[in-house]
Amino acid sequence: MFKNRFKKRILPVAVLSTVALGALFGSLHNDDVKAIEAKQNDAKIKNVIFLIGDGMGVSYTSAYRYLKDDPSTKEVELTEFDKYLVGQQKTYPEDPNQNVTDSAAAATAMSAGIKTYNAAIGVDNDGSSVETVLEAAKAKGKSTGLVATSEITHATPASYGAHDVNRKNMNAIADDYYDEMINGEHKIDVLLGGGKSNFVRPDRDLTKEFQKEGYSYVTNKNDMLNSKNSHILGLFAQGGMPKMLDRDESMPSLKDMTETALDKLSKNKKGFFLMVEGSQIDWAGHDNDIVGSMSEMEDFEQAFKAAIDFAKKDKHTLVVATADHSTGGFSIGAKGEYNWFGAPIAAAKRTPDYIAEQIAKGSDVEQTLKKYIDLQLTAQEIQSVKKSAESKDVTEIDNAIEAIFDNRSFTGWTTGGHTGEDVNVYAFGPGSDLFAGNIDNTDQAKLIFEILKNGK
Amino acid sequence: MFKNRFKKRILPVAVLSTVALGALFGSLHNDDVKAIEAKQNDAKIKNVIFLIGDGMGVSYTSAYRYLKDDPSTKEVELTEFDKYLVGQQKTYPEDPNQNVTDSAAAATAMSAGIKTYNAAIGVDNDGSSVETVLEAAKAKGKSTGLVATSEITHATPASYGAHDVNRKNMNAIADDYYDEMINGEHKIDVLLGGGKSNFVRPDRDLTKEFQKEGYSYVTNKNDMLNSKNSHILGLFAQGGMPKMLDRDESMPSLKDMTETALDKLSKNKKGFFLMVEGSQIDWAGHDNDIVGSMSEMEDFEQAFKAAIDFAKKDKHTLVVATADHSTGGFSIGAKGEYNWFGAPIAAAKRTPDYIAEQIAKGSDVEQTLKKYIDLQLTAQEIQSVKKSAESKDVTEIDNAIEAIFDNRSFTGWTTGGHTGEDVNVYAFGPGSDLFAGNIDNTDQAKLIFEILKNGK
Repeated sequence: MFKNRFKKRILPVAVLSTVALGALFGSLHNDDVKAIEAKQNDAKIKNVIFLIGDGMGVSYTSAYRYLKDDPSTKEVELTEFDKYLVGQQKTYPEDPNQNVTDSAAAATAMSAGIKTYNAAIGVDNDGSSVETVLEAAKAKGKSTGLVATSEITHATPASYGAHDVNRKNMNAIADDYYDEMINGEHKIDVLLGGGKSNFVRPDRDLTKEFQKEGYSYVTNKNDMLNSKNSHILGLFAQGGMPKMLDRDESMPSLKDMTETALDKLSKNKKGFFLMVEGSQIDWAGHDNDIVGSMSEMEDFEQAFKAAIDFAKKDKHTLVVATADHSTGGFSIGAKGEYNWFGAPIAAAKRTPDYIAEQIAKGSDVEQTLKKYIDLQLTAQEIQSVKKSAESKDVTEIDNAIEAIFDNRSFTGWTTGGHTGEDVNVYAFGPGSDLFAGNIDNTDQAKLIFEILKNGK
Repeated sequence: MFKNRFKKRILPVAVLSTVALGALFGSLHNDDVKAIEAKQNDAKIKNVIFLIGDGMGVSYTSAYRYLKDDPSTKEVELTEFDKYLVGQQKTYPEDPNQNVTDSAAAATAMSAGIKTYNAAIGVDNDGSSVETVLEAAKAKGKSTGLVATSEITHATPASYGAHDVNRKNMNAIADDYYDEMINGEHKIDVLLGGGKSNFVRPDRDLTKEFQKEGYSYVTNKNDMLNSKNSHILGLFAQGGMPKMLDRDESMPSLKDMTETALDKLSKNKKGFFLMVEGSQIDWAGHDNDIVGSMSEMEDFEQAFKAAIDFAKKDKHTLVVATADHSTGGFSIGAKGEYNWFGAPIAAAKRTPDYIAEQIAKGSDVEQTLKKYIDLQLTAQEIQSVKKSAESKDVTEIDNAIEAIFDNRSFTGWTTGGHTGEDVNVYAFGPGSDLFAGNIDNTDQAKLIFEILKNGK
């Protein structure tokens, strides 16, 4: 009467990861499994790698899975993130005027364990500085690092390594990185990202000051990879780094920077704390740019995998990855359509921002579109960009190009700002079970403080 | 130098629920905790309550928390769901034309453990019937029940208790409920919801047929509550039941129906399987009606709590709650605004659908709005509804009223259909840990089949 319900049976990964096949099908009760879990989670925690996908809401991680799906198989393959989902976190700030968070308040919650106002960098509602987990790690003699594709002084990394009443003060934040000492040492050993203009300024050249203190200073991928120094400042762009899709070979990926940081920080026998941010998932989300956001998801996934690979070998490293909030009100499906297609997005060789810039500079519309987009564009699509190009306004051209991808993929957006839904938490390694369930963003810091305090 | 970072410390609930305070702060390693967890999860599973919030994506559960927040406290209070978050599930169907699921394919995945096409009710891609967990439970001698606020023959409940190539065949689905026998018994002991018109028809009156077989047949709350019979068919509306906000006292809530079902089903010493659907979160989502969707979230939360309360007392009941997909591309925040306000939504005494119907029937616009909406409406807001009323078109009036709530709450929408992002999974009781992490919607059935098979 019934078809065999087992024909397509695949065990859930979460179960496979901790429960032996035989154990599940034999009995749900298995003391061995519990013992294995306990053993895995009770190793001494020496290192913490905390990764933040800025703006990486649930729609982004799910869409990225759709995008990377192998169409030759019936199943949609798991992303690196999927294997380590443990729960979600709440993100709301404590701001007099806004109840949806910005990246500064969210990062301060995760770095210092307090709710504060939007724009606050490592400070409480009254403007007073609060200790961060990076600082607590340094005070314990551990090495510390910050890695991002934004300016390394941007809100998220800043909230781990600086204190300022306003995220806009990126020069003062760069000063904090150098000036604020812990036990006679500069508090951050590895700084890799964008934002040269906040370090090399008319009033001060922090790259020279850091070099005098024994840091290597690098500005391209090769020099970064060849550096043997345990202390390094790498600034790869004046402002934010190009998105993954737009980078040339001189530019490190987030994975390259993460691996370099891990290589240097892991030389300290007392361990390390490293924060890695996939900064521009959010930037693309603000721009309602699905191509750019998926480009940055890939960059972030590879960095996450590098962290996991390190932790698997090391066995004393806790890895936590999460987002600070979601961005753009991005939806998988729009306008009544029950589909979302990754293929048109994967056909872009550059971001709409990049393509629009070429067109705004005078490149031929049709040739430029064909050069960078591997799709049979319709006459109507080409015409829509040609029309936008008459304005010579790069934003208008960008919007026209983005519309092609939105329409073909069935991507929806509701805002150029952030949204307030819970975001996912992924964790691996000893202590990872502590981050499970529905937690608050402040719990991220509270738990890491405890881990540092207990000397695990 | 630093403010005390502990001042606002609140332990994450997930930790509190399993780890003693002293254990966490003393050491992350605690054998006692593991022992307690093991004990909790290893009890014999006699009963399974599976709850589906139709359309209840992550935005809905997070927004509902914002809505229910007590503004007199700094923290946003947890919902009943938050306490039991264990992970998420993937929802994609296996459909030749659509990669975002409908409720039928999603419910068949969860009921039978197979991926199938959109519109499929308990059948595989080739149209052949597949066994459902409800049927497997009945075959084991357990009692079974279906509870919903839609027609009880609608896609979600249908996929547990019927087999049809198309969800639209609701009469045939009602026939299945009666005609398909397992071990000489009708396979569903408790049926509570809407959809009288699919049972009382010119060709057949299933209410009479069920009564001949010893079922009680009830059509209002009091009769339902007073029924002593273990077998019951309750049909409380011709089609879908009114939304919680629009119900009168003759109408049971989803909680009332859930408690009635639990009361009857739990008399079977062999245990039971019960599926409860909060059907109209989705309907309101399709309508882009934030008032209606939050009304149905509350109805569903109370039913979920009733299930949890039962399981806490019983100790041999597994409760799983999830969604089949998200709906509407609903975002918390819209149009660049970093806020989402629950207060305007809570000010509605009826849904926009209900209010629009009164106006379409000829009720005075301003008086009707003031009667049912506890807000100081602006002249512009009233005028917008007056203008829509000139059309005498109830949908146009409904849209104008919904716009007031969207604008005041900063709610965004991208579609009248479904969206493809992962949805949350909540679980409590013995076996709940099996549902943790990122699982597939088919895993829900696969795990329940195993639980039934192992006779737990």
